[in-house]
Amino acid sequence: MVLTDSLHHVVIVGGGFGGLYAAQALKNAPVKVTLVDKRNFHLFQPLLYQVATASLSPAEIASPLRLVLRGQKNTQVLLDEVVDLDPQAQKLYMKDGELPYDSLILATGVSHHYFGNDHWQDDAPGLKTVEDALEMRRRIFLAFEAAEKELDPEKRQAWLTFVIVGGGPTGVELAGAIAEIAHGALKQDFRAIDPGQAKILLIEGLDRILPPYPPELSAQAAQSLEHLGVTLRTNTLVNNIADGVVTVKQGEEEEVIAARTILWAAGVKASSLGQVLHERTGVSVDRAGRVMVEPDLSIADYPNIFVIGDLANFSHQGNSPLPGIAPVAMQQGRYVAKLIPAKQQGKTPPPFHYLDFGKLAVIGQNVAVVDLGFLQLSGFVAWLIWVFAHIYYLIEFDNKLVVMVQWGWNYFTRGRGARLITGESVLPLLPGRSLTQPEDNQVKVKA
Amino acid sequence: MVLTDSLHHVVIVGGGFGGLYAAQALKNAPVKVTLVDKRNFHLFQPLLYQVATASLSPAEIASPLRLVLRGQKNTQVLLDEVVDLDPQAQKLYMKDGELPYDSLILATGVSHHYFGNDHWQDDAPGLKTVEDALEMRRRIFLAFEAAEKELDPEKRQAWLTFVIVGGGPTGVELAGAIAEIAHGALKQDFRAIDPGQAKILLIEGLDRILPPYPPELSAQAAQSLEHLGVTLRTNTLVNNIADGVVTVKQGEEEEVIAARTILWAAGVKASSLGQVLHERTGVSVDRAGRVMVEPDLSIADYPNIFVIGDLANFSHQGNSPLPGIAPVAMQQGRYVAKLIPAKQQGKTPPPFHYLDFGKLAVIGQNVAVVDLGFLQLSGFVAWLIWVFAHIYYLIEFDNKLVVMVQWGWNYFTRGRGARLITGESVLPLLPGRSLTQPEDNQVKVKA
Repeated sequence: MVLTDSLHHVVIVGGGFGGLYAAQALKNAPVKVTLVDKRNFHLFQPLLYQVATASLSPAEIASPLRLVLRGQKNTQVLLDEVVDLDPQAQKLYMKDGELPYDSLILATGVSHHYFGNDHWQDDAPGLKTVEDALEMRRRIFLAFEAAEKELDPEKRQAWLTFVIVGGGPTGVELAGAIAEIAHGALKQDFRAIDPGQAKILLIEGLDRILPPYPPELSAQAAQSLEHLGVTLRTNTLVNNIADGVVTVKQGEEEEVIAARTILWAAGVKASSLGQVLHERTGVSVDRAGRVMVEPDLSIADYPNIFVIGDLANFSHQGNSPLPGIAPVAMQQGRYVAKLIPAKQQGKTPPPFHYLDFGKLAVIGQNVAVVDLGFLQLSGFVAWLIWVFAHIYYLIEFDNKLVVMVQWGWNYFTRGRGARLITGESVLPLLPGRSLTQPEDNQVKVKA
Repeated sequence: MVLTDSLHHVVIVGGGFGGLYAAQALKNAPVKVTLVDKRNFHLFQPLLYQVATASLSPAEIASPLRLVLRGQKNTQVLLDEVVDLDPQAQKLYMKDGELPYDSLILATGVSHHYFGNDHWQDDAPGLKTVEDALEMRRRIFLAFEAAEKELDPEKRQAWLTFVIVGGGPTGVELAGAIAEIAHGALKQDFRAIDPGQAKILLIEGLDRILPPYPPELSAQAAQSLEHLGVTLRTNTLVNNIADGVVTVKQGEEEEVIAARTILWAAGVKASSLGQVLHERTGVSVDRAGRVMVEPDLSIADYPNIFVIGDLANFSHQGNSPLPGIAPVAMQQGRYVAKLIPAKQQGKTPPPFHYLDFGKLAVIGQNVAVVDLGFLQLSGFVAWLIWVFAHIYYLIEFDNKLVVMVQWGWNYFTRGRGARLITGESVLPLLPGRSLTQPEDNQVKVKA
């Protein structure tokens, strides 16, 4: 990288909603911008569950960062991973080198949280990256393939049992989509099984799904999910996950569920850069590792370091921290992008204030819930609002005409055309029935 | 799997062009069909290079086999891999069990051939599977990312040097597409490098590229590639590939090319099932491992075992075996699908005869070469023929409306929107400049 001039250098770490909106809002500012991300694309995470459930392809919800920022001449994109920083020297340490900054914006987001049970990760993957989504997609569709071949009814039902842990928006979206796959898309595709026999269980620890929503919307979402064929287990905690078995506890009652596909949508923790920042600057972090930020999104004692998006805990508005959703990150990115040049000019802008336009969660085709604060909606109208809001934001960076066509196509065909099982070979699917490679002409089969 | 009735059981191994066309042509035959494939989708291989070069997503050129065959009630699809067979007992051995057959159609195709240099595979991947294409895509776009960060001019040029080995259609397509990426799609995307400085070398051992085409078309293809910025090296053999360096030999002259991206498009060998068949039945195989078939595509001494598509060596028409292209496989699949029920009825249909409608190879946007036998075309008209032929066959199984929209979009924007670098983390890209993770507040950087 070549850094020649003496302009104020803003380094942004992370090209998610927070970082990318900050970069774009700095387009005409008298600064030099470097955006560092370990991936070469911005991911439209709200639609990641559609990749996991074979409605969309990864490229359809990803925008190459260089493409988005190609016209922005004051901005350079670097593919690299920040591993440490020196706040006194104002330097970042990346895997491929170091990078000095004048102002720093950290927006590296969150990953899955297993609440001390990290060993559940292999059995119950979460959904944060493109690779996570392809892994979920692979497990969901492999399960039906294995069931088609399995002769033992009990084992077959385990292949046809899907447990989703966590009744927030992601869990609700996954459960709804898997129900639609089992009862719709795959209906005529098998000969030995009826995919409609699939059991889809959604496990939630609190007393209702979508807990941040008004209780009426939670109830309507629950009803819609049940209508799609999802079984809800609220007030239910996961005690253990191992080897295709989930042990849950509702009150005093323990239940053992044989399920070959277990998906994790229960919690998030801050990316490790939050901890690094804590060690280097002494800034406080919360239990999830999120960085406690000041009213202007900077951190204590370091007015030139900002933390935004899911990585930040902003607790200066309302009774709880702002939620980890895209609109918060976008508004924070834009706020900091205005704050930095203003402070250079000696101004002191007012603190950050989040404008809440509402919350959306989708359950299935034609069904969503929308909480606009002054108005709660569910059903088809809510779904239309969800569709248009997502198209609007999705096409902002990089006109995703193809997604609209794909959605239109999927809508009318109820298709799940992206159901490729990719990655390493997984055969045999039914290891108990596998064969030894016969030698010579003597073919031998293990029982 | 449940096999209850006593209908003649046709087992097809492989869901490529040969196997899938055979399955579809058996739709109304009085037989029971089982299609076994280790993947759950049919791959439209002629467009795989467009996935490797970020124009299309994998799902856009793949059709789930179950979806294609869902309406065909006499047909079951099994996700499994055939590892052996017993031709006397008429049984296949798969990783998850065994499968009896009355008639067998083997259509498992080919993989890369490194001509005794299998250790080149990691340094110079080939293009046969979705995973191969994503690996090529990842290497091509990572090379530009690394070049952007590399300060040493020589190392930077090595990152910007792309060597494609093999001047057949795949090599020509890849070279043309990479030239378009470097000179077009990425033009404005970098700050430290000019992607137009990329060198793209196409290496061919014979005296011209596209050797099976008439010499005039080869010459026109060569001119078009050079116009796109591709350097051709004909009469040139690869002596060695190791560690980012290709050693080539033209006559007596040896040249060492520093290139971080080397792609293999030079040869194919039959899938291992050809060798298994040879061991179990004594049938001859050629040097590439392809099975020598009889005029009716069966194998010597086993009139109920058929081999079709790229796995077959059919040498009963013309002076050389039929080429390993989709139209041959399709016609062979349909032929066998008619032959099997006819033979059950005691008929003896005429031998297989390939109807050659011509050959197509694409070089870049607006440029292709077409050899229709009676007519040779190059340039825009040839490109239009290529586009329509591919759309026609692509949408046959599964209406790929999205591909048409994506192509239209790409055509006008010259976009390469699917340029996601996915898979395992590869950072650091420039290992010589990597850092040790600093301990405490002492940040240390390796030279």
